[in-house]
Amino acid sequence: MSMHTKTGTSQRTIVLRTRLKPTDPDAVRALVAATGRFSDAEVAIAGELVDECILRGTESGYWFVVAEIGESFVGYACFGPIPCTTASFDLYWIAVEPSSQNGGIGRRLIEDVERQVAESGGTRIYVDTSGREAYTATRAFYERMGYERAAVLKDFYAPGDDKVIFAKVLRQD
Amino acid sequence: MSMHTKTGTSQRTIVLRTRLKPTDPDAVRALVAATGRFSDAEVAIAGELVDECILRGTESGYWFVVAEIGESFVGYACFGPIPCTTASFDLYWIAVEPSSQNGGIGRRLIEDVERQVAESGGTRIYVDTSGREAYTATRAFYERMGYERAAVLKDFYAPGDDKVIFAKVLRQD
Repeated sequence: MSMHTKTGTSQRTIVLRTRLKPTDPDAVRALVAATGRFSDAEVAIAGELVDECILRGTESGYWFVVAEIGESFVGYACFGPIPCTTASFDLYWIAVEPSSQNGGIGRRLIEDVERQVAESGGTRIYVDTSGREAYTATRAFYERMGYERAAVLKDFYAPGDDKVIFAKVLRQD
Repeated sequence: MSMHTKTGTSQRTIVLRTRLKPTDPDAVRALVAATGRFSDAEVAIAGELVDECILRGTESGYWFVVAEIGESFVGYACFGPIPCTTASFDLYWIAVEPSSQNGGIGRRLIEDVERQVAESGGTRIYVDTSGREAYTATRAFYERMGYERAAVLKDFYAPGDDKVIFAKVLRQD
């Protein structure tokens, strides 16, 4: 924070915040669209979840952590408690601005999600992703972060597009 | 439909309807509570989904089929297309009034769900249930109806309470 020489965002300090700002819904839509990994429908849903959280707070069921470098919104994660479970959380979205990827932002975000979940008494985090080849790096990222492949639902998203469910147990009950 | 002798509901004609009535949200709450298989939070959610569908129609994402015998609301199913999938549907709820169980109402409901899903171009139906012993009959019912155990998420609902995901492929794409 404070002063940084302008040597590209990857060498500047990543600041996390959990409080949303009125500009965040549009920032999330822009970022999710910029990744090129989500459909228009998914971009719309990503933005709606931010709107919901600004409107209704944690009661919305959608919790956030945003990563910023200087003034730039460079990544975020959206997660929340799974209704009708005692201690399971879903990591709904995690996205990092393309030019800031591979700079440890994803790791910082997911670690903060795990911290918040643990502080709220959560013991398990689930995250769904695609089994397509385009998502090989995404799946490898979750595996590096200690998530295990808990299930594969064949052709769930579309023919040839399986859903892979990863799970991480933060602590045994 | 027309006349029936009063020989107990199990021998009277089951009538299905897909159109909701203003009395349905309360009927659903009463029925779901009466089964004794759902928590208060789940009963509330079940009712809210009916409210949503009455308010916003099929756009709500929640579709219904209700089973009646004479004037009695004896069962229902709630299902809908899974966002961001091309042809997958989720069967969110299926419940039959306790005194009317084992009379084929569950089968009629699930067959109607499958008919509606197929007519809408859906190819897959997913249904989640508990791995607890209390749900042995529920799981056996899905298996009889051609649903296969696609995944088990250990301790998902609570310690010792796994989530079992059943899937039925209506047709291969």
